[in-house]
Amino acid sequence: MSLLTRILSPRSGSSDGPRTLRLGIAGLGTVGASVVRMIARRAEALSAATGCTITVTAVSARDPKRDRGLDLAGITWFDDPVALARSGEVDCVVELVGGSEGAAKEIVEAALAAGKHVVTANKALLAHHGNALAKEAESRGVSLAYEASVAGGIPVIKAIREGLAGNEVSRVYGILNGTCNYILSRMEAEGLTFEACLKDAQALGYAEADPTFDVEGFDTAHKLAILTSLVFGVEIDVEGVSVEGISAIQPLDLTMADELGYRIKLLGVAQATEAGIEQRVHPTMVPKGSAIAQVMGVTNAVTIDADAVKELTLIGPGAGGDATASAVVADIADVAAGLVRPTFGQPVTGLAAPRRVEMQRHEGGYYIRLTVHDRTGVAAGVATRMAEREISIESIVQRRSAKAEAADAKAAANDPRGLSRAPVPLVLITYAATEGNIRAALDAIAADGLLAEAPQLIRIERE
Amino acid sequence: MSLLTRILSPRSGSSDGPRTLRLGIAGLGTVGASVVRMIARRAEALSAATGCTITVTAVSARDPKRDRGLDLAGITWFDDPVALARSGEVDCVVELVGGSEGAAKEIVEAALAAGKHVVTANKALLAHHGNALAKEAESRGVSLAYEASVAGGIPVIKAIREGLAGNEVSRVYGILNGTCNYILSRMEAEGLTFEACLKDAQALGYAEADPTFDVEGFDTAHKLAILTSLVFGVEIDVEGVSVEGISAIQPLDLTMADELGYRIKLLGVAQATEAGIEQRVHPTMVPKGSAIAQVMGVTNAVTIDADAVKELTLIGPGAGGDATASAVVADIADVAAGLVRPTFGQPVTGLAAPRRVEMQRHEGGYYIRLTVHDRTGVAAGVATRMAEREISIESIVQRRSAKAEAADAKAAANDPRGLSRAPVPLVLITYAATEGNIRAALDAIAADGLLAEAPQLIRIERE
Repeated sequence: MSLLTRILSPRSGSSDGPRTLRLGIAGLGTVGASVVRMIARRAEALSAATGCTITVTAVSARDPKRDRGLDLAGITWFDDPVALARSGEVDCVVELVGGSEGAAKEIVEAALAAGKHVVTANKALLAHHGNALAKEAESRGVSLAYEASVAGGIPVIKAIREGLAGNEVSRVYGILNGTCNYILSRMEAEGLTFEACLKDAQALGYAEADPTFDVEGFDTAHKLAILTSLVFGVEIDVEGVSVEGISAIQPLDLTMADELGYRIKLLGVAQATEAGIEQRVHPTMVPKGSAIAQVMGVTNAVTIDADAVKELTLIGPGAGGDATASAVVADIADVAAGLVRPTFGQPVTGLAAPRRVEMQRHEGGYYIRLTVHDRTGVAAGVATRMAEREISIESIVQRRSAKAEAADAKAAANDPRGLSRAPVPLVLITYAATEGNIRAALDAIAADGLLAEAPQLIRIERE
Repeated sequence: MSLLTRILSPRSGSSDGPRTLRLGIAGLGTVGASVVRMIARRAEALSAATGCTITVTAVSARDPKRDRGLDLAGITWFDDPVALARSGEVDCVVELVGGSEGAAKEIVEAALAAGKHVVTANKALLAHHGNALAKEAESRGVSLAYEASVAGGIPVIKAIREGLAGNEVSRVYGILNGTCNYILSRMEAEGLTFEACLKDAQALGYAEADPTFDVEGFDTAHKLAILTSLVFGVEIDVEGVSVEGISAIQPLDLTMADELGYRIKLLGVAQATEAGIEQRVHPTMVPKGSAIAQVMGVTNAVTIDADAVKELTLIGPGAGGDATASAVVADIADVAAGLVRPTFGQPVTGLAAPRRVEMQRHEGGYYIRLTVHDRTGVAAGVATRMAEREISIESIVQRRSAKAEAADAKAAANDPRGLSRAPVPLVLITYAATEGNIRAALDAIAADGLLAEAPQLIRIERE
């Protein structure tokens, strides 16, 4: 049978009889437990929708004794998840263990090798091994489904792969990490520092004890790499993502953003350019009136720019047991309905090799916050260095804090020329310029001795 | 073969060979022409995604001589679209004629009777005959696909039917008519009247010469009826939709909405209640900070409230040739990939009969704008009548226009007791109350002789 016409009839001899899909679930954390409950709760609806009875026949988790509030009667318990993946009782393996290596990888590889469908929520695994795993799945004629790996409960994989099949996509960008969006939302609303909001996020369970993976943008990069492959028909290239997190964002940046008509969001952006495909994760100024700017707290959002639909935005929960389980169950329903599509929207053998674009070549608007010595001629010096690199300035804001004013007033008696005045922020918004030119101009400004601190640079993303 | 496992292999004897899907397109207006071009432009990608070669083999339209800028070489022209629907050259009929009766209905019926898949953008046909057509499609084991019929290029049918398969939905609501949203957006932004904005919308081609169908909410009602069926698993009941358009909205209502923290949108809302399923189309106050409130101009948006994902919002183009064609081609790709799902997400025989809920039983917040005689005791009179019906008031705003002030000042000399003063607006926002109680209170207020004009009543929809 060819890939796309393969029909799932694991138990029934003929495709006419009632069909059953037997699930083996590896990992019974919040998401796994929610999947088990959802499959039970929605049994009738799922059967009506797919023409197939879906049952959980096997589970595996680290601690067999933990009370998860689940009725596991009649379900086979496996201590070894790889044995579950190979079990003859299982048609479709649901991998919810997580991590790009170790058990998760072994489970998925064993399941595919045994010709079983795989549904996973594991973005790290996909980002690092997606090409090889997709190849294996396609050669076996089985599904490797991963809706839950990107933007949690938002059915963005399905929307792009199927809903936009007629479109050529030019850009996809989104808020893909709820932890970062929660922190930035609170910093903005309450004028708090990154550190204070991170602490709250940890207390609320929105951030890990070691938050690096989320706040430095790596989680977003994994998800973006998956979207890039799907949207542009290229092999996954997570190493090609330029990554910058939110830990350097200061309350002043959020205040200035507000004043200039922007909000700051950590975006993952994949964009087709003449030189190749830009993949970048960084704090981003988005226009306040844009749909994505309204997205607050742990919510995720993805916007797709495409030739026919122009702009499509999906907003929903990016994490949480039930929301993630919703995406997992949607994938399971597709498998149950007999839908086997190529992992990345087209056969993996047809995916193009990635063509990376250096961030130096990125072209866009920039927010630049300089901390300059408060001396005559500084603004002119900055403007000259910008002009040398053909960078046009859209707006410029210089404002002294009340505290600085007070300190200076006190010092004025002994320092009539103002040489001891405190450094002041100088904020510039540029028209489109290349990152290379921006960096070169900033280096020149620093070499001129105009800066009291390293500059803050935030990219602007237009609708 | 059972419904869900039927495989499309129209031309090839075995499912192993290369497959072809032959399209017959009835209707070559803006959407039809865009579909023909998209199928050609995306031929390679669609073939890679579906494992099937998609070709247009037949077309039909009213005027064979019109230059549509299309290369129709090698494509059979049918003067009679019903003959196209029956043609042996066609595996899937794309109905883009429009209208609930006449040619469109005959084409779809003939296609289904001949065992062909149908893809349509026709919301009126679905809303009025969807139950019977779905039954026919399912008995034949073919697809009746209609992504383009609701919210244009937004893949909302797929998102609900497949992406949210694990969810129980409690409410779905959306901006489903671009004409109305364009008019309301301009009224709000520029303080213009409904009539002035309608004229502009007509000049720009966003509104028909006879705009009734759009501005009085019937188009939204058709789309809502389809969503209701899909979301709640009930038969389509377009007659059960309570419909109210936007023609009575005045600039003052938009000003007051803004002041009170709302925007006014024409929403279609389907909501599960204990008494049954409310289906209603009406101008609605939505909180300014909500995602749906940001949707301006001809853009559409749909929000789904569901148990697992909580809230999912999709925003995109609601109309236009390319956007609608995008949805049509997505359906075609599903057919080409061999995906045949029940029309309304589950077999039509399993759909429940609709249980209508009278609008009188609707419970929610209300914006009430009264035009009262400017006399002592009027506000107290209004408040008393509200209290009698156990309606709690959240805010109350009374403001005299500058014009009224000036007129009164002029008259004051001859009318020291103010008996001739111009009527003034009195705006109330209520907490949740039933529509029956609200209407009864308003009737009592009118009977008391307090009103100079009929009251304006706009429902509030909370997130």
